[in-house]
Amino acid sequence: MELVAIGMVESSLTDRESAPKQGDEGAPEATLVFAPHVAEGLDGIAAGDELLLLTWLDRARRDVLRVRPRDDPANPIRGVFSTRSPDRPNPIGLHRVTVVAVAGLRVRVRDLEALDGTPIVDVKPLLRTVDER
Amino acid sequence: MELVAIGMVESSLTDRESAPKQGDEGAPEATLVFAPHVAEGLDGIAAGDELLLLTWLDRARRDVLRVRPRDDPANPIRGVFSTRSPDRPNPIGLHRVTVVAVAGLRVRVRDLEALDGTPIVDVKPLLRTVDER
Repeated sequence: MELVAIGMVESSLTDRESAPKQGDEGAPEATLVFAPHVAEGLDGIAAGDELLLLTWLDRARRDVLRVRPRDDPANPIRGVFSTRSPDRPNPIGLHRVTVVAVAGLRVRVRDLEALDGTPIVDVKPLLRTVDER
Repeated sequence: MELVAIGMVESSLTDRESAPKQGDEGAPEATLVFAPHVAEGLDGIAAGDELLLLTWLDRARRDVLRVRPRDDPANPIRGVFSTRSPDRPNPIGLHRVTVVAVAGLRVRVRDLEALDGTPIVDVKPLLRTVDER
């Protein structure tokens, strides 16, 4: 189960401490720079699309199973699988973003809390319930 | 970027052709059987929780960049990243499920279209907008 990078995040965010914890908490615009070998897979992505971006959180710890959510001392410690902590056995980041513009292999998005240089591993359309499809 | 299996899906679904394409299109109940080494990470997961389950779609093709959505000849071919096709460079499955019951390392869930034996790689709480949190 080996992931291949299909691109990389270009962002003004460079360290975890100063990054917002969720994309809709003041995260900046960022650029998804895709690798030439996946160019055909981008066909159909356009400005205004809401996407789920999957990344590999390469600065996370993989030996953490229990955390205090949002690093807030008021929160009780709990298992990582009921939190969005980046520290977890498989540090896959899941980010809901809106496409601002597409220029070839460069896709500009809103509301991305991933750090500069984070590898991209997948992109999917937003999950919808059957009623919305 | 090497994923480790944190568990496996037990399901009555055994082949792709007969499985529903999405969990809310008639998928059965299934059991997530977690590995003992991640037991602490499950702390806090309870019946009624809505979760996002991430799996490794081990029967998918990784060399596919363009598909016809839902295998429907009426749909035009498009890039995999704007579809939910299991065939894609990194075949990570993203499934929205509801917990029915928890018994130690076994978590029973509703609406899972993943096949029997599919490796589990992560579990996260459902994405909510900032207004819902």
